[in-house]
Amino acid sequence: MTSIPTSIIIFGASGDLTRRKLIPALFNSYTKNRLPDQFNIIGFARRPWDDAEFREILLQGMHDYAPDALTNGDWDDFVDRIYYVRGDLSTAVDYQTLHTHLHEIEGQQANRLYYLAVSPQFFVPIVRQIGQENMANEANGWRRVVVEKPFGTDLASAQQLSDDLHAVFAEHQIYRIDHYLGKETAQNILFLRFANIIFEPIWNRNYIDNVQITVTESVDVGHRAGYYDQAGILRDMFQNHLLQLLSLVAMEAPASFSADAVRNEKVKLFHAIRPLDLNDTVRGQYRGYLQSDGVAPDSQTATYAALKLHIDNWRWQGVPFYLRSGKALQAKASEIVIEFQRPPHLMFDKIMKDDFSPNILSLCIQPDEGIHWKFEAKVPDSVQETRSVDLEFHYQSGFRDRVMPDAYERLLLDAMNGDPTLFTRSDGIEAAWRVIDPILQGWETENKPPIAVYEPHSWGPVEADALLASNGRYWRLGCLHE
Amino acid sequence: MTSIPTSIIIFGASGDLTRRKLIPALFNSYTKNRLPDQFNIIGFARRPWDDAEFREILLQGMHDYAPDALTNGDWDDFVDRIYYVRGDLSTAVDYQTLHTHLHEIEGQQANRLYYLAVSPQFFVPIVRQIGQENMANEANGWRRVVVEKPFGTDLASAQQLSDDLHAVFAEHQIYRIDHYLGKETAQNILFLRFANIIFEPIWNRNYIDNVQITVTESVDVGHRAGYYDQAGILRDMFQNHLLQLLSLVAMEAPASFSADAVRNEKVKLFHAIRPLDLNDTVRGQYRGYLQSDGVAPDSQTATYAALKLHIDNWRWQGVPFYLRSGKALQAKASEIVIEFQRPPHLMFDKIMKDDFSPNILSLCIQPDEGIHWKFEAKVPDSVQETRSVDLEFHYQSGFRDRVMPDAYERLLLDAMNGDPTLFTRSDGIEAAWRVIDPILQGWETENKPPIAVYEPHSWGPVEADALLASNGRYWRLGCLHE
Repeated sequence: MTSIPTSIIIFGASGDLTRRKLIPALFNSYTKNRLPDQFNIIGFARRPWDDAEFREILLQGMHDYAPDALTNGDWDDFVDRIYYVRGDLSTAVDYQTLHTHLHEIEGQQANRLYYLAVSPQFFVPIVRQIGQENMANEANGWRRVVVEKPFGTDLASAQQLSDDLHAVFAEHQIYRIDHYLGKETAQNILFLRFANIIFEPIWNRNYIDNVQITVTESVDVGHRAGYYDQAGILRDMFQNHLLQLLSLVAMEAPASFSADAVRNEKVKLFHAIRPLDLNDTVRGQYRGYLQSDGVAPDSQTATYAALKLHIDNWRWQGVPFYLRSGKALQAKASEIVIEFQRPPHLMFDKIMKDDFSPNILSLCIQPDEGIHWKFEAKVPDSVQETRSVDLEFHYQSGFRDRVMPDAYERLLLDAMNGDPTLFTRSDGIEAAWRVIDPILQGWETENKPPIAVYEPHSWGPVEADALLASNGRYWRLGCLHE
Repeated sequence: MTSIPTSIIIFGASGDLTRRKLIPALFNSYTKNRLPDQFNIIGFARRPWDDAEFREILLQGMHDYAPDALTNGDWDDFVDRIYYVRGDLSTAVDYQTLHTHLHEIEGQQANRLYYLAVSPQFFVPIVRQIGQENMANEANGWRRVVVEKPFGTDLASAQQLSDDLHAVFAEHQIYRIDHYLGKETAQNILFLRFANIIFEPIWNRNYIDNVQITVTESVDVGHRAGYYDQAGILRDMFQNHLLQLLSLVAMEAPASFSADAVRNEKVKLFHAIRPLDLNDTVRGQYRGYLQSDGVAPDSQTATYAALKLHIDNWRWQGVPFYLRSGKALQAKASEIVIEFQRPPHLMFDKIMKDDFSPNILSLCIQPDEGIHWKFEAKVPDSVQETRSVDLEFHYQSGFRDRVMPDAYERLLLDAMNGDPTLFTRSDGIEAAWRVIDPILQGWETENKPPIAVYEPHSWGPVEADALLASNGRYWRLGCLHE
């Protein structure tokens, strides 16, 4: 199947994602000679464009979003392989047109990657039309479909979506993107844990006090208010990004890095999460959210959440995992902080136990990708005084010869290469919903925690601090201070 | 005893050590308000100086060796407490003179620190005179004696020296200096190991492949050739500095940081060292050594040695400790490299096991004090490629508010404060000689390894590489590359 051409068909190609992410990613891969020898990119959307107009718009996108890439590669040669087919996403006859065009471009045989760069309500209609046109049939080359989140809005709708996709595509053909998994720093978590011997022996309840996962945004809901007021922070961030980060940091060692070995461990981890107590959840809303266009004036939608999770297995019993995420916060940050226990015995008799800071390992996902390891060192010119110091690694300075690629670059290549390791399997989606769904439901009941209003540009509501304070713990930021 | 004055009596005060190290150290402590409220410094030597001349020479030493210190403190006030007593180190009547002067300076009662800044052949004569004058008697204040290395030239002479010292001073009065133990980075080894929880779990045979201790000098024997040709590298560096570093990195956790708890663990460690096989020793001599003034033309003295040690206890069984030291090498460096094992299982199927570099923790004693931790990270924009990257900590940038003090500063204060933790106890000295003595003796027999000639400015003889190569290991420098 490698000697035949590969088509990348983008449904909803006139949207922002195509020119902002997909085309720059594909062009970068092309420049690095990583695309198949023969490939074509076909945009499909309603706008009345022709090939030339589509190409012009994509070039403008390159100037806007990836100007450096243009200087490295031969855009003119690349753009010759890009086509545009006008059509309506829910009109059968337009799919016949698309199919005819594909045959003209491809010839007899071709592999095809269908990329659904559309709103979720179009996922199923598109897939059904693909099925009706017999375009999922792999007789003349592989057929794969890339689906963007959200994968449902709760467990039931996720299962329904899964069933609808499976009516046309087999599971091995479906690539569900969580772009967080394509980030180098997220990928590196497994390398860090399992390509080094020093971490795994201390990566458990005997040495770790708690784990904190923070994914914050400084922007507010902005023009997405209408969508957001329906979704809320749990659907928008927790069910996908935060639980994926949790699985990477907490999973058992897979036997291999193969897609099923890794994804089996993730599902196992999700299944080990203890059903949440509503008292271990905090829901927040930033002041001013209710005044946003598209938001119901009495909206109870959370723009911030903090959760305290427990993982019921041998490795993590008794170690709380604190997860928080929110909008309109002080800074944009994604990091995992692993707080180790204090030493069991303090031989330095002049120091109180509380004077010792615990060791902190911070995995910095973004914006300053890297690792910080905070440990205690003797203060020079003191007798027994210690102070926390930072061992630091930054990707930018550590890999000067490499440019950090955008997550989409890797994920699109993996999909073309048939490697689903960094994509989410249907049982993983459902297992994640099984964690989130009861909270969503609980937040609709009488027992729900009151909504905690927080100031924009703060670090969230004080109620989130109380979640940790009962054990003398507090939220830590291990990466941002640099 | 803190309300009475303290006298620091320096025997051999006209020598280099006094103006280069002792006076700058004392002046720095004075500037930091760490000296006793009432103190006097009395130099005792043969040169026909008076107080003024002595003070002038010390001021010149400050300009030469510690000019920055002068700008921070009140030298004029400090120097008023410095006196000079002329006398011969082996003439009884001169000690009577000294004693009379001390009484005049001190009044009725005083604590006294006797500092033997003299060649080792004067240790015992001085101590005997002190005894004869009844100057070791603690009725009117404490009396302590600071002895510089070497502590004997073999086990028998060390025991004799110990006996001779004990004839006048009790063990608690004797402070044997190994200035390596006063270095901040050497002190920090125990803080690193026991003020952090992350190191101790992996600090053993289950995770460590081997430990390397390198203490190299770039200078050759120079004007010390006469002394050196008698001593050799084992006496000059191994019996003291290298074995002390070994004990810090390998000892069990003491129950407290008290002097006896720490020193008990050191002695225990020395006793656990397996008697060396001569095949596990390398003796080297740099090309040109035989032409040095003061060196016998057929000298067999080693200016370089490398040893492979085994520690027979539960923690270290099967982990080789490689020690090397030499003169006229490529660079001056003191570092401890801990090479961890490779991960037990490689889940990344595209990488060969040998492609993985082991994790390396380097404790950098000097010149660039700090810590390097080398581990594997995923190479950005690769699928499964890893590369070694360095987490680094440097004292200079990590403790910008602190100037790294000279080792003597801390050690002199500890002696005055009665804290012998960083000084060597007589049983520790003897235990170290029990390790070194058999090698010295073996190197006099038929079975001795041939002397390995190495080029000046190299990293030593190839025979030292062979000591590690049999197991696929090699000498590592973990600090110097920065």
